[in-house]
Amino acid sequence: MQATFELSTTGSGLYEFTSDVEAFVRGEQVATGLLTLFCQHTSCSLVIQENADPDVQRDLDAFFKRLVPDTDDPSMSYLRHRAEGPDDMPAHIKAALTQTSLSIPVSNGRIALGTWQGIYLFEHRTHPHTRRVVAHLSH
Amino acid sequence: MQATFELSTTGSGLYEFTSDVEAFVRGEQVATGLLTLFCQHTSCSLVIQENADPDVQRDLDAFFKRLVPDTDDPSMSYLRHRAEGPDDMPAHIKAALTQTSLSIPVSNGRIALGTWQGIYLFEHRTHPHTRRVVAHLSH
Amino acid sequence: MQATFELSTTGSGLYEFTSDVEAFVRGEQVATGLLTLFCQHTSCSLVIQENADPDVQRDLDAFFKRLVPDTDDPSMSYLRHRAEGPDDMPAHIKAALTQTSLSIPVSNGRIALGTWQGIYLFEHRTHPHTRRVVAHLSH
Repeated sequence: MQATFELSTTGSGLYEFTSDVEAFVRGEQVATGLLTLFCQHTSCSLVIQENADPDVQRDLDAFFKRLVPDTDDPSMSYLRHRAEGPDDMPAHIKAALTQTSLSIPVSNGRIALGTWQGIYLFEHRTHPHTRRVVAHLSH
Repeated sequence: MQATFELSTTGSGLYEFTSDVEAFVRGEQVATGLLTLFCQHTSCSLVIQENADPDVQRDLDAFFKRLVPDTDDPSMSYLRHRAEGPDDMPAHIKAALTQTSLSIPVSNGRIALGTWQGIYLFEHRTHPHTRRVVAHLSH
Repeated sequence: MQATFELSTTGSGLYEFTSDVEAFVRGEQVATGLLTLFCQHTSCSLVIQENADPDVQRDLDAFFKRLVPDTDDPSMSYLRHRAEGPDDMPAHIKAALTQTSLSIPVSNGRIALGTWQGIYLFEHRTHPHTRRVVAHLSH
């Protein structure tokens, strides 16, 4: 039981796709199982974060931008990989600092998210991209 | 085969619950399988770390506090989400930098931890909390 | 269906073992499933990263060395755990910032890696080590 989610991004930040994941799990009618999400890219990643206050998503992106500035910032002059621009290597670093895969138990036919948890693609590139996340549901 | 662990925390730091996980796996009598742990919160997280020297746990907490100071520190004035106090948004960031889910193979009826590995809830909030970690065991 | 990969490391950096993982999955002849990798150490870790330009791997190691300097650097004087030298505690921190486990869907008999993705052991210690990664394949 697998599916691939295609997500369009328009710059760095968090893109929620919790409802897509929930619809997939509901359609498979599995009472108890395990859902795994896998991001097929190395310059975006996955995070589970608070979905109540949008400032949380904005602040996360702002923190990672300060922790890993683009390579046109003098502090990052030691980085060599700049093939696709100043946001290229920092995107790889931010992906390494977050998650490529996530696993969530399924109980009573629903993914066992906590009250305030949402599932996000964390885009680290500046330009628009189409991103693919593979879902695997086992029971 | 699922269970929920409830863990009480009294401030930031690492709380080991390896023995709870081992007891759950032993009780299910699965010879070969996969154990997945999922943290139902966005201001605490999961880490597998050395359980020999308690200084490792202390140092990890100290590092993350310096990497992500509370929002009453002037260096963090760009963060907006402060609904629950100065440790609120930094807790979300530290959770994004560590793990929400962990998967560990089960071999010969035991989780395949390395010699020095322990399983920890990493609490990032200052005040006491009750935290829930869902375990899923497949075979 | 489990296997253990033994990897020899000779200093900090990324060591690719994608082909070992692919050979294991091919040998098991599973069409659809889930592969989980688990690192049995707390001073090295797992990352999925770009395997096209070797500068990406070099830059990742360089970034983490600057983010978490060795404890002989005055800025790290607050860290206590130094049992095995100045790269000891920083190695634990870098492991906490990356991954201990990774899960990758298997589709049509192959792990569903994206075009540029490779699987790496991220060694954080300076001296040579033999590292163990346990693989579990479920279907």
